[in-house]
Amino acid sequence: MADLSRTPPLTRASVIEAHEIIKPHVHLTPVLTNTTLSTFASTPQSSETLLHADDQHHDREAITPAKPKVKLFFKCENYQRVGAFKARGAFHALSRLTDEEVSRGVVTHSSGNHAAALALAARTRGVKAHIVMPTISTPSKIAATKGYGAEVIFSGSTSQEREAVVEEVIKKTGAVLVPPYDHPDIMLGQGTLALEFEQQAHDMMDAKPELSVEDGKTTLDAVIAPCGGGGMLSGVAIALAGTGIRVFGAEPSFQGADDARRGLAEGKRITTVKSLTIADGVRTPVGEFPWAVISDKGMVSGIYSVTEDQIKAAMRLLLERMKVFVEPTAALGLAVCLYNEEFRRLVEQEGGEKGWNVGVVLSGGNTTLEAISDLFATPEPQAERAEGVLGKDGMREAENVAG
Amino acid sequence: MADLSRTPPLTRASVIEAHEIIKPHVHLTPVLTNTTLSTFASTPQSSETLLHADDQHHDREAITPAKPKVKLFFKCENYQRVGAFKARGAFHALSRLTDEEVSRGVVTHSSGNHAAALALAARTRGVKAHIVMPTISTPSKIAATKGYGAEVIFSGSTSQEREAVVEEVIKKTGAVLVPPYDHPDIMLGQGTLALEFEQQAHDMMDAKPELSVEDGKTTLDAVIAPCGGGGMLSGVAIALAGTGIRVFGAEPSFQGADDARRGLAEGKRITTVKSLTIADGVRTPVGEFPWAVISDKGMVSGIYSVTEDQIKAAMRLLLERMKVFVEPTAALGLAVCLYNEEFRRLVEQEGGEKGWNVGVVLSGGNTTLEAISDLFATPEPQAERAEGVLGKDGMREAENVAG
Repeated sequence: MADLSRTPPLTRASVIEAHEIIKPHVHLTPVLTNTTLSTFASTPQSSETLLHADDQHHDREAITPAKPKVKLFFKCENYQRVGAFKARGAFHALSRLTDEEVSRGVVTHSSGNHAAALALAARTRGVKAHIVMPTISTPSKIAATKGYGAEVIFSGSTSQEREAVVEEVIKKTGAVLVPPYDHPDIMLGQGTLALEFEQQAHDMMDAKPELSVEDGKTTLDAVIAPCGGGGMLSGVAIALAGTGIRVFGAEPSFQGADDARRGLAEGKRITTVKSLTIADGVRTPVGEFPWAVISDKGMVSGIYSVTEDQIKAAMRLLLERMKVFVEPTAALGLAVCLYNEEFRRLVEQEGGEKGWNVGVVLSGGNTTLEAISDLFATPEPQAERAEGVLGKDGMREAENVAG
Repeated sequence: MADLSRTPPLTRASVIEAHEIIKPHVHLTPVLTNTTLSTFASTPQSSETLLHADDQHHDREAITPAKPKVKLFFKCENYQRVGAFKARGAFHALSRLTDEEVSRGVVTHSSGNHAAALALAARTRGVKAHIVMPTISTPSKIAATKGYGAEVIFSGSTSQEREAVVEEVIKKTGAVLVPPYDHPDIMLGQGTLALEFEQQAHDMMDAKPELSVEDGKTTLDAVIAPCGGGGMLSGVAIALAGTGIRVFGAEPSFQGADDARRGLAEGKRITTVKSLTIADGVRTPVGEFPWAVISDKGMVSGIYSVTEDQIKAAMRLLLERMKVFVEPTAALGLAVCLYNEEFRRLVEQEGGEKGWNVGVVLSGGNTTLEAISDLFATPEPQAERAEGVLGKDGMREAENVAG
C-alpha cells in the first residue's frame, strides 16, 4: 500500500482528486427513486411490528410509532464494475502506487468483492495480483477472481492463517499489500460515490421538484450506508464533510455484527467480530483508519442496527418492488429507514413537518439465485407488514425514476 | 373500447401521437447495456450445448455453431409503472374513449399485468374499472388490483367463464371493454416503447461509440420482443416501420406456446394455445389485429422460439449479471439471442463482419422471490454453459451503462 507519509489528507478535496483519477475506470452508477418505498418509509410501523422487533427494547414503551417524512434516493453501486463499490477503492489505491511498487505486484486476502476489484484494477494497470482466498471459498468466486487474471493462493479460513499466507507472498515476491478497507487511499476511493450521489440527487430534484420532500429544495439531508470495515462509510463522511448532509451507518445486530454501534456506545473500537449475519459484506470489525472518522460525531452522526428479518424484508422490497438485484448487505440502509424506530424518531424530530431527503447506498449486487432461494425458504415476518401497507395504499408499481 | 371507425391508422405517425398523449402518465424507462452479455451473445455455442437443445432438430447437423457479432441494448420496461409495458396500452386506450364512454366505466378480464395497468389508468382518469379475475388468481395480484381502486369480480378460470362474466358486467353497467391486446389503440400504445428505445440507443451510441458494433454507427439494426397476444410486438413493428430497424418476435416452444411461429409456417393464425410455459405473460395466442401486422413479412422479420431451460438461463443472467429483476417472460428476447441457432445464424449472415446492434425488450418485472425459488429449485443445464463462458473470459462485472 502507498506509504502513509504519501497519502493525501482525509478531506473532501482529496476525494474530489481521487474521483478525477478513477473516473475513466469506474461507472457513474445510476441513482433511482421509488414512490412506493418512500411511502413505506413515511408510514408509521404498527405497534405489533414494534413488539416483534428483537432489537429495540428501549422502544417497547413508546406509545406512538415514529412518523418520519422521507423521500428516498438510492445510489446503485450494484451496477458498479465487479458489481460493488469496491472497484472505486481498488482503482484509487493502485493509482497511488509508484511504478516501482507495482512492478513487484499487489497482494490481498479476500473472498469477496475486494478480491475481484483488486484483480480488475491490477489487470487494468498490467500488474500482477496475488489474491489469498480460503480453500472453502465459493468456486464461482474463485473462478471469477482467476478470470480477471489474478493468481489465487489458497489458505485456511482464520484471519491468522490468511495473513500468514499473505506474509509469505510478500516475502517471496515483494508484492505490495492492498487491504480491503483499512487505508486512507481505500477510504478516499470509496468516498467518490458520495460526490456523484450528491450531484445526481441534486440534478434529479432540480428537474423533478416532486422527488424532494420540499418544493425547491434540491439537496439531500442525509446519506445512510452499510458499515463493515468502515472504508466506505468513512469515505462517504469525508466526501460530504462541510456540505450539511448528515452521514449515518447501518449494521446488522446479529451475533454482535453491530461492532461500530457498540464501539461508539463504549467509547472505543471493537476489534473482533464473529458473526454469520446474512449481510456477509459487513462481518468484519471497523478498521483503525475508518474508526478515526466514524467515531467523530462531526463526521458520522450515528450508527443504527437491524435484525436479520428486517434485512430480508428490505431486500425483498428492493428486488420485488424496485426491481433491482442486490446482495443482502446492500439492504441495510433501507432496513434502517423502514424498521429502526430510533432512526425513524430522529428523522421525525429533525426533519419536522417537511421531512428529509435520505440517500441510501446500495453497496453491491453479487449474490446468486441459489443463495436467494435459501435465504427466503422461510418467509420473514416483516414482509407481511409491507404487504399490509401495500394493500392499503395500493401500490405495487415499479416507479423508479432514474437520474 | 374505442370504436374501430375512430381508431387512428396503424402507422408510425399514430404511435408518435400516442406517445405524446401517454407521456405524462408513463415512465421513460432506462436502456441498459452490459458488456458481459454482449460477449456471451457473440460467443459461439458449444456443439454439446446444441445437441442438448430440445428444439432445434434442424440444426443438429450443423457442424460449426453460428458466430454472430452482437452488441445488446435492453429496454427496461420492468421499471415501467405497474412493473410492465402494459401501462402504455392501457393509458392510450383509455385516452381514446369519449367522456360519455368512460362515464359508464371500463371492464376487462386479466389476472396479470393488464389488470393492474387498466386499474391504474382508470384511477388516473377518475373512471370506474371492473376487473374480472379467476377465483384461483394469486391473492397478492387480487390485492394489488383492488389497491388501485378497481372492483374485482371473480369468475371461473376458462376463457368462456371469464368472458361470460365480462358480458354480464357490460349488460349491467354499460362498461366499455378494454381488451389486453387485440385492439389498435392497445397496439399503438405499446409501440411507444420502441420510439423511446430507438432514440435512447442512438443517444447512447452517439455519446459512447464503443457501445456500438461499429464506430460511428448510432442506430439499432434489430429489436426483439416477446410475443404473446402480439399487442406489443405488432406495436413495436408499427413504430419502427420505415426506419430500417428489423423487428423479431420471441416465444417459448413449450407445449406449443410458439403459436405465432407455427402460424407463420402454416400461413394462418393459430387461435388456441394451452401452455403452462414459465413465461406466463405469453400463454395466449396472437390476436386478430396484431396478427395482421405480425404476419406481414415487411413488418416482422421472423419469430423464434426457445425452451424453458433457455428462458431460465437467460433470466439467471439478467438477474445475477445485469442485476435487473425481471419476470420469466422478459427473458425471451435474450434467450433467443443467446441460444436460438437459427436466429444467431441469421445475425451472422446479415450482420457480417461488423455485426448487429440488437435491442432487447425486457417486458416486465412482476414476480416474487417465492416464484423464483420454485423456478430455480433445479439448476438449468444452459446456465452451466454461461458459467463456462464466464470462467474463460473472466467477466462477472455489472457493466451496465445506462442511457
